[in-house]
Amino acid sequence: MNNNSTPDNDKIKILLAAFKASLEQTFETMVFMQALCTEPQVKHDHFPSGAVSGTIGVTGEHFQGRLSLIFTQAIAERAFRSMMMMGAEDPVNESELKDAIGELANMTAGGAKAQLQQQGYDFVISLPTVVMGLNHHLESPKGCETLVLPVNIGNDVFHMEVAIV
Amino acid sequence: MNNNSTPDNDKIKILLAAFKASLEQTFETMVFMQALCTEPQVKHDHFPSGAVSGTIGVTGEHFQGRLSLIFTQAIAERAFRSMMMMGAEDPVNESELKDAIGELANMTAGGAKAQLQQQGYDFVISLPTVVMGLNHHLESPKGCETLVLPVNIGNDVFHMEVAIV
Repeated sequence: MNNNSTPDNDKIKILLAAFKASLEQTFETMVFMQALCTEPQVKHDHFPSGAVSGTIGVTGEHFQGRLSLIFTQAIAERAFRSMMMMGAEDPVNESELKDAIGELANMTAGGAKAQLQQQGYDFVISLPTVVMGLNHHLESPKGCETLVLPVNIGNDVFHMEVAIV
Repeated sequence: MNNNSTPDNDKIKILLAAFKASLEQTFETMVFMQALCTEPQVKHDHFPSGAVSGTIGVTGEHFQGRLSLIFTQAIAERAFRSMMMMGAEDPVNESELKDAIGELANMTAGGAKAQLQQQGYDFVISLPTVVMGLNHHLESPKGCETLVLPVNIGNDVFHMEVAIV
């Protein structure tokens, strides 16, 4: 990200800050893990790819974009076990896993929405779209700035991806 | 789908009819191919999977759901070549392909939105989410009725998937 303070750049910063704060809060209260968002990078090519992703659309007067959380299978399962207070080797039910990833994306977007409403920004959030499949990736929507934030949880990393028109 | 005329069932029927009409119209005018939607089936497990999918969220007072178009790589490329009036062996640019699939999903949802607005239903549609990756599938959102419609174009079949709360 550059330092040009264009309105679009401001909009991205506002949305990103709200998503980061909400993601960290969501992981603390739901997953019982400290999530630490690192610096955003401009998305290139097919990175990040994953086996499980949850995406929420954000649509309103001020914002049109989407938020995605993208995990490898192992890291999604590790987060799920923590969320459910399961043992490290307990088997993970796939249907429950996808609901959990959809719910994490939903709570992250919902928390950001609540926070931004207090600042006068209103938008609706879509149903979560959970995709499963080894090495799938999300494409940047045409005309969008797409940013990728590595997120540390314990010794693992997953990715938050934010696209905004 | 059963024959109970519950309000939810009516809502699904109304949305599905609008998506079908708009998809067929979009393919006729954009892809120069006749698309023929067949009977909806209740989604089970991981079917359909594909290599390229385009998803649009639909959010409003009356409807909360999403529309996805799911293609194999070969069929997505065939539709793209027809759309761009390219020869059957012409190489397909991946970035243009993903924009085209996102645009087809966008126009299908946008056409349905315009049609349903005339009937008094209002909703917003999200940015398209285009996913690429061999054999990925979309999961049904929790608590959603998800329907799958095979769509014939020429000798090929792709799938429209509609989830609605």
